[in-house]
Amino acid sequence: MSSTFIGQRLRLSIFGQSHSEAVGMTLDGLPAGIPVDLDALQLFLNRRAPGRNDWSTPRREEDRPEFLCGLKDGFTCGAPLTAVIRNANTRPKDYSQLRIMPRPGHADYTAEVKYGGFQDCSGGGHFSGRLTAPLCVAGGILKKILERRGVTVDARIAAIAGIWDRSPFEASVAGKEFPVVDDAAGEKMRAAIQSARADGDSVGGVIECVVRGLPAGVGEPMFDGLENQLARVLFAVPAVKGLEFGAGFSAANLRGSDNNDAYCIREGRVEALTNNAGGILGGISNGMPVVFRVAVKPTPSIAKAQRSVNLQTLTEEELRITGRHDPCIVPRAVPVIEAAASLAIYDFMED
Amino acid sequence: MSSTFIGQRLRLSIFGQSHSEAVGMTLDGLPAGIPVDLDALQLFLNRRAPGRNDWSTPRREEDRPEFLCGLKDGFTCGAPLTAVIRNANTRPKDYSQLRIMPRPGHADYTAEVKYGGFQDCSGGGHFSGRLTAPLCVAGGILKKILERRGVTVDARIAAIAGIWDRSPFEASVAGKEFPVVDDAAGEKMRAAIQSARADGDSVGGVIECVVRGLPAGVGEPMFDGLENQLARVLFAVPAVKGLEFGAGFSAANLRGSDNNDAYCIREGRVEALTNNAGGILGGISNGMPVVFRVAVKPTPSIAKAQRSVNLQTLTEEELRITGRHDPCIVPRAVPVIEAAASLAIYDFMED
Amino acid sequence: MSSTFIGQRLRLSIFGQSHSEAVGMTLDGLPAGIPVDLDALQLFLNRRAPGRNDWSTPRREEDRPEFLCGLKDGFTCGAPLTAVIRNANTRPKDYSQLRIMPRPGHADYTAEVKYGGFQDCSGGGHFSGRLTAPLCVAGGILKKILERRGVTVDARIAAIAGIWDRSPFEASVAGKEFPVVDDAAGEKMRAAIQSARADGDSVGGVIECVVRGLPAGVGEPMFDGLENQLARVLFAVPAVKGLEFGAGFSAANLRGSDNNDAYCIREGRVEALTNNAGGILGGISNGMPVVFRVAVKPTPSIAKAQRSVNLQTLTEEELRITGRHDPCIVPRAVPVIEAAASLAIYDFMED
Amino acid sequence: MSSTFIGQRLRLSIFGQSHSEAVGMTLDGLPAGIPVDLDALQLFLNRRAPGRNDWSTPRREEDRPEFLCGLKDGFTCGAPLTAVIRNANTRPKDYSQLRIMPRPGHADYTAEVKYGGFQDCSGGGHFSGRLTAPLCVAGGILKKILERRGVTVDARIAAIAGIWDRSPFEASVAGKEFPVVDDAAGEKMRAAIQSARADGDSVGGVIECVVRGLPAGVGEPMFDGLENQLARVLFAVPAVKGLEFGAGFSAANLRGSDNNDAYCIREGRVEALTNNAGGILGGISNGMPVVFRVAVKPTPSIAKAQRSVNLQTLTEEELRITGRHDPCIVPRAVPVIEAAASLAIYDFMED
Repeated sequence: MSSTFIGQRLRLSIFGQSHSEAVGMTLDGLPAGIPVDLDALQLFLNRRAPGRNDWSTPRREEDRPEFLCGLKDGFTCGAPLTAVIRNANTRPKDYSQLRIMPRPGHADYTAEVKYGGFQDCSGGGHFSGRLTAPLCVAGGILKKILERRGVTVDARIAAIAGIWDRSPFEASVAGKEFPVVDDAAGEKMRAAIQSARADGDSVGGVIECVVRGLPAGVGEPMFDGLENQLARVLFAVPAVKGLEFGAGFSAANLRGSDNNDAYCIREGRVEALTNNAGGILGGISNGMPVVFRVAVKPTPSIAKAQRSVNLQTLTEEELRITGRHDPCIVPRAVPVIEAAASLAIYDFMED
Repeated sequence: MSSTFIGQRLRLSIFGQSHSEAVGMTLDGLPAGIPVDLDALQLFLNRRAPGRNDWSTPRREEDRPEFLCGLKDGFTCGAPLTAVIRNANTRPKDYSQLRIMPRPGHADYTAEVKYGGFQDCSGGGHFSGRLTAPLCVAGGILKKILERRGVTVDARIAAIAGIWDRSPFEASVAGKEFPVVDDAAGEKMRAAIQSARADGDSVGGVIECVVRGLPAGVGEPMFDGLENQLARVLFAVPAVKGLEFGAGFSAANLRGSDNNDAYCIREGRVEALTNNAGGILGGISNGMPVVFRVAVKPTPSIAKAQRSVNLQTLTEEELRITGRHDPCIVPRAVPVIEAAASLAIYDFMED
Repeated sequence: MSSTFIGQRLRLSIFGQSHSEAVGMTLDGLPAGIPVDLDALQLFLNRRAPGRNDWSTPRREEDRPEFLCGLKDGFTCGAPLTAVIRNANTRPKDYSQLRIMPRPGHADYTAEVKYGGFQDCSGGGHFSGRLTAPLCVAGGILKKILERRGVTVDARIAAIAGIWDRSPFEASVAGKEFPVVDDAAGEKMRAAIQSARADGDSVGGVIECVVRGLPAGVGEPMFDGLENQLARVLFAVPAVKGLEFGAGFSAANLRGSDNNDAYCIREGRVEALTNNAGGILGGISNGMPVVFRVAVKPTPSIAKAQRSVNLQTLTEEELRITGRHDPCIVPRAVPVIEAAASLAIYDFMED
Repeated sequence: MSSTFIGQRLRLSIFGQSHSEAVGMTLDGLPAGIPVDLDALQLFLNRRAPGRNDWSTPRREEDRPEFLCGLKDGFTCGAPLTAVIRNANTRPKDYSQLRIMPRPGHADYTAEVKYGGFQDCSGGGHFSGRLTAPLCVAGGILKKILERRGVTVDARIAAIAGIWDRSPFEASVAGKEFPVVDDAAGEKMRAAIQSARADGDSVGGVIECVVRGLPAGVGEPMFDGLENQLARVLFAVPAVKGLEFGAGFSAANLRGSDNNDAYCIREGRVEALTNNAGGILGGISNGMPVVFRVAVKPTPSIAKAQRSVNLQTLTEEELRITGRHDPCIVPRAVPVIEAAASLAIYDFMED
């Protein structure tokens, strides 16, 4: 049991391996009568799709989902919604050595232990970033539904390789090829990516996401809070190793009098003067924007030689990876974070 | 639906409000025949119990659980295990104003919106830190079972008020009243707490937790990974606003060649030379210690005057909180983090 | 994992053994602001309580629940609702032999195999009919909420010892000590019970339940249909060995043209001329009454000598049971079936 | 939320409509390294496939699943297993009138209410018996795994149109085109089917299923017992309206001394002399065969004219159904019941 999200309203099953016939998803629990705009969805998927620019892997995939069921005349019909994306551009031979010599930072070794030699590690198998494509199919549909209800989910690159974009995040940057607010900072980030690529290396970063328009009162105390649910989904995105809400780790350095968000009245409504809570108190939204950041580790697949081990001979060996990889997955992960957040948030919304 | 943890093997239901008759828990899914050492459990609970020193609330509670069922002659009998802790030292009148004038940083306002005026906000109600007592009953029992199977779960204060204890965390500090490794750093932290208290203020901090002895291969890909499950439980602990595994947010600044943990052979076994992954790759343990840190915000209840609003008149007012509160909950939260982690980890273990 | 019902909206955790300190339940997921009439609940519980008449066990228990949390001023407050009932009138010594010599028809043997000798089999332990008391606490509250929303849940004795009450079931018989429609048939059933008791034996029966007022459109296709969910809860009631909806097993003998419920228009609304479907088509309510029947096996605890085995010596032996038991549990099971059905039905209702 | 089975170990998501591009399933939770014999699976699927004989619909479908992922070199690889079956032989125009004039006994009306006019009712949509094809893919694989572990799951026709096959069910009849034990009774059943077909009508029946080789101790008390879980899955099969275990409804007529299964010692092992309990006590297997029967209602689609209503004009009208349908689905439902039971049973087995 692993790849099925079981929420309050939704059940999302994600399937596929990097080099299997297809990857795909089944989304169960959507009400009937929701329009699904496939063109808008394709634009969303294109933001994640590989092979389109110099910071992503040269593996080019069209990422064009085929909907097998659940839609009728452009609307959901109440039955589960299933979409598959065929894997076209696969090169299984690139990966033949990995079951014997695991790549550091990848799941090759842990999967080998868990699946006792039967795993399909080709291209990373079920652990591949390719599985974020079906997550984006589900999340892209849900993000659009949320929008129609006045809830927007927007992410941006906050940092890459230690270079921060500290501009306030006030409007979507989804239209930009490199989704930062401050393009000057973006230029420095791109240079850092190119420099890492030139060295046969990779870089990581931080993505910030803001959910606006969520009314107060959404979420549950304790195990089913907004934070818990967002965390449960966000850590399903490969390479995410940290998550913080609002002031997050900085709050640990503050005093209560600084960290508490004082309430005020604005146009007859309760608001907070600051948003250190990231819009969530006691697991429940307070009507302020929900703000969180995730730490994305540098792509583990690098061209540089690395120390690994031969699992058959139990000897140490040098590993050189020859597949096609992103020197930085942060830009492509931005819509994935939006998709994951949309899934977590939608699941709490009343019909 | 909120206060029931539904795992692979365990179901934990936590109930109670700060000032209700009792708080308690039901743990369902433990095999029969497990010895439960109530004295050892009490020692664990005492680490969390309030009223024992100058950094915790003067509300003194014995935190002595009564087991209603599930135990027979000191062993689990296969039936659900239920324990209740009576709330003895309650002062409901302290809280009469809070439904009208919510405390910044607390769930008073979000609960009022969600529960439409019916919430029991006395003492924080179901959102109170008091609910971590039954979590510690469950977690304390599970921690002990894990220990018998060679898996230890140890947490320590890593930072308070920006003062860090950077000593390596190699052995339990559970025996210390103030659970740091570096007592000199601990002294500075205690001084910072006293200083905040003197100012009618509070401070936050960071707790680090290390799980040792977990074999490789534990956890699942995607939504049911070790990170997802730990996150789901840890964000149930009040005041936790951030979580990172291994290098966490620092990994975002590293290159892949630095962040990847190279494999090596030690005494015929596969190990990693570093542990930036925090012992988890692809959601699955790799045999290295599982390491994570949580950010704990400063206690929102402070004596200082704060800006709030009157929800009836929708006017801004000054709030002065008169209840009994901790100037810093980080020390008392250390065993709570161990309890939460034990719950998350045990749930994945094969019998 | 066993004694936690996980529904769409509700989570119900039932705990306790027949002779433990207490039995009880936690109901999580009720909205805040629901009035709970404890007097009405007590009347409902009294219908199940033992020791009140000549067909039930002489073990007399008050079945008076103590609510530990979740209520404030008579209304639900949004937090989990927990109630415990102390076990007063226990006689553990009656059961000392059962772990060695299991009672035919009871769970003594299966529990012994499963729990490896650690089970608390005293009084049937967690398998005892006593656990239906907390189920009735939860179900009694939910039944009342349903009533306020126009949905009634009523059960009656349909048959005991092969004697049927074939009168139409049009109004509640909850006020009767012996809940049949046709009192003449009831007299015969009572005589059959007394006859069995005189022989040191027991009898079984059939309970019919009707849910009226449920609007069309409630339920889900496939695994989460009304039938699936009712079944999941009803088979949790000890001694239930069969379940049928509408025409049920008789439908197997009919032709489609007889079994299909023709639609008609009554006062401008769609209705069906018959109700062989028991109000459910495709797992979803059709607006007709939901009708089902459960088969209740005869109480396995009988005074008559029975053949059993000694699990230590693996020899066949004669067993004589000396505890206090019901010669027929069907009358007391009537409110239990109402409680179980109320749980299953409420869980599907929109707020 | 509807079409996802969430068990202890497995999660099965079933998707598709009768006339959508495809139907299919994702099975999550199988261990890696399990051989999947696609030829054996196809033989199993052929037992359910339509269009092969005179009691089934003339709609002929090959029911040949394409596995998209989860298999590698004939073995499960630990990732979710997804298979799709294309819908080839669809005739959507047959169903154009059904959204306006619902077929009695079908889900047309309840789905219309629930999905507010957006349902895909063509061919029964997601409620079609066609959805049992992917259930058989999952169940067929699980049945084979159980077999390799010594657990067999066999079903047979017990009755059709009131004609019973009362021969003891001691060996699989899977090889027979018409799966009865007593072929003479079978002949009479076939005659009854032909007679109903000639009348433009249909007949129902009873299927009995026996699970042999299940060790004692499998299952959980209360909500997660063997009976509960089997019920949850079996009522997902369209047309099932009743379920009984062991003596079932007959037990209601027995005395305890007759219904209790006396224990004995056979070859040094505990057994029962009878099996009125159907192999289950307290929700847990007792080592005897698990025996249950399901009532299958007559196919609601009949050629005879029926009374229905026009949902637009709210007038009563006569309905004539012109699609292709089975005069009796009981024979084809036999492997479906085996598949459903295999799913329920496997989910409880330890690895």
